[in-house]
Amino acid sequence: MIGIDWGTTSFRAFRLDDQGAIVDRRAAPRGILAIEGARFEEELLRQVGDWIADGETRVLMAGMIGSRQGWQEAPYVRCPAGAADIAAGAIPVPFAGAALRILPGLTVTDAAGVPDVLRGEETQIVGALAAMAEVAVACLPGSHSKWAEVEGGRITGFATYLSGEAFAALRGHTILGRTMREGPNDTAAFDRGLARAADPGHLLHHLFGVRALALFGALGEAEGASYLSGLLIGHEVRAACAGDGASVHLIGAETLCGLYARAIAARGAQAVVHGEEAAARGLFRLSAEVNWQ
Amino acid sequence: MIGIDWGTTSFRAFRLDDQGAIVDRRAAPRGILAIEGARFEEELLRQVGDWIADGETRVLMAGMIGSRQGWQEAPYVRCPAGAADIAAGAIPVPFAGAALRILPGLTVTDAAGVPDVLRGEETQIVGALAAMAEVAVACLPGSHSKWAEVEGGRITGFATYLSGEAFAALRGHTILGRTMREGPNDTAAFDRGLARAADPGHLLHHLFGVRALALFGALGEAEGASYLSGLLIGHEVRAACAGDGASVHLIGAETLCGLYARAIAARGAQAVVHGEEAAARGLFRLSAEVNWQ
Repeated sequence: MIGIDWGTTSFRAFRLDDQGAIVDRRAAPRGILAIEGARFEEELLRQVGDWIADGETRVLMAGMIGSRQGWQEAPYVRCPAGAADIAAGAIPVPFAGAALRILPGLTVTDAAGVPDVLRGEETQIVGALAAMAEVAVACLPGSHSKWAEVEGGRITGFATYLSGEAFAALRGHTILGRTMREGPNDTAAFDRGLARAADPGHLLHHLFGVRALALFGALGEAEGASYLSGLLIGHEVRAACAGDGASVHLIGAETLCGLYARAIAARGAQAVVHGEEAAARGLFRLSAEVNWQ
Repeated sequence: MIGIDWGTTSFRAFRLDDQGAIVDRRAAPRGILAIEGARFEEELLRQVGDWIADGETRVLMAGMIGSRQGWQEAPYVRCPAGAADIAAGAIPVPFAGAALRILPGLTVTDAAGVPDVLRGEETQIVGALAAMAEVAVACLPGSHSKWAEVEGGRITGFATYLSGEAFAALRGHTILGRTMREGPNDTAAFDRGLARAADPGHLLHHLFGVRALALFGALGEAEGASYLSGLLIGHEVRAACAGDGASVHLIGAETLCGLYARAIAARGAQAVVHGEEAAARGLFRLSAEVNWQ
């Protein structure tokens, strides 16, 4: 089968054998925002047409490809939801080359009536389920970081944090960015930001401190962005993670997971890093529950 | 005398008589960032040269004009600071037409060693002192909102919140802005944002809720910006204001003070609005303490 994680900014495809082992993979910066004129079928064939020509008959997709801006909308499934619930929400998409299904995202509503959503992360969480305890917490860092609670193999709830996008906006479009220079992550500065997040005071106040520290020469131009990153991730982790020594299952890109693992350790919890293959495992696991008829 | 509040984005001048009454005023969008080639003297003469020609011999300035990017740097004075301390930090600037002094800003360092700064607001607070109780709180909303504690006529400490600039960056440069339309403030949506700020959950999570509400049609395009504004101001006010029925002295532009007054009322405190003339009163009050020799 072919499993695809097709998000806002990237396209990742896995060719999986009958046991779910990855026999081939493709990745391209061809997220749905990059596809002009909604030519998703054309793009799919360009990326993995050779696998289909070679005999693959099932294509399962997850992520923003199932959003209103994607190929076809797969309505959100409500939490709590396990693999069977997610698979039942898959929608068939007309496609000449193979049976094609798009998985749904999940939604949850908090006590105040405010909704939350995710798309693609449900599949990655399903892919990491086998490594999780009966009750577990998963964190999927990114522009919109997701923190999900898992119980008995079902995603019971989750919350999104805008940390990644807020970082980019604050760095690129406020006075804070004026004293920041491009460069590699500075671990010491990141840790200072993490420590600052644990101080009394609201994030909106801590943010101005980035400016004031720079003004007095107490935060260098090569340190500023890492400090800001540590500050935001620190605030997110402190808010989302109880820090009672429990494990947090981190799923995502290696570098970002490394930063979150540091923040989780500083919080007094410990990170179990899953890596990006969780998506492939989730797609394989869900394909067994999807109605392919 | 001539009193000038010369900030980052605007220039405001007051001609004051011997009793401190405003006999004339000028305002222009000629903040220090708008002055090319640091031609501050030229700009001052363009704005109030006629007052000087008419016999004014003293010009007192406050605000970012005294920063490193301004006409001449007036080093920060450390809190606690009263009118005499601030006036003692005024620096003389060579100027042919009159005696010219630039007032300093204030600085404070918190328990964690992180500094904070303000420039211009110290003068506005001094201008509002006469209306304050022995122990009072002042809030000066803006791109960088300041919350100051006042005791016995001295500013004992303060904290800055990046709310205004964060609003502009989040609205203009994240996914949140995509579902927002320009328009007048929507009070009901602002109040919903305020109420959301009082819900459990971190600001970074509440921010994503703006997106999710829009996605489900629960927040209209004409409501989004006001909701986001209420959310940020609500978070700021909840963090900065104890809400124990005490008074908060609000100093600033009328529209913004109106929004903050709403947030302060929602917090269970009450606002005393001072308006922008506090700057003129503060400049007059400080001129009496400045060394003009």
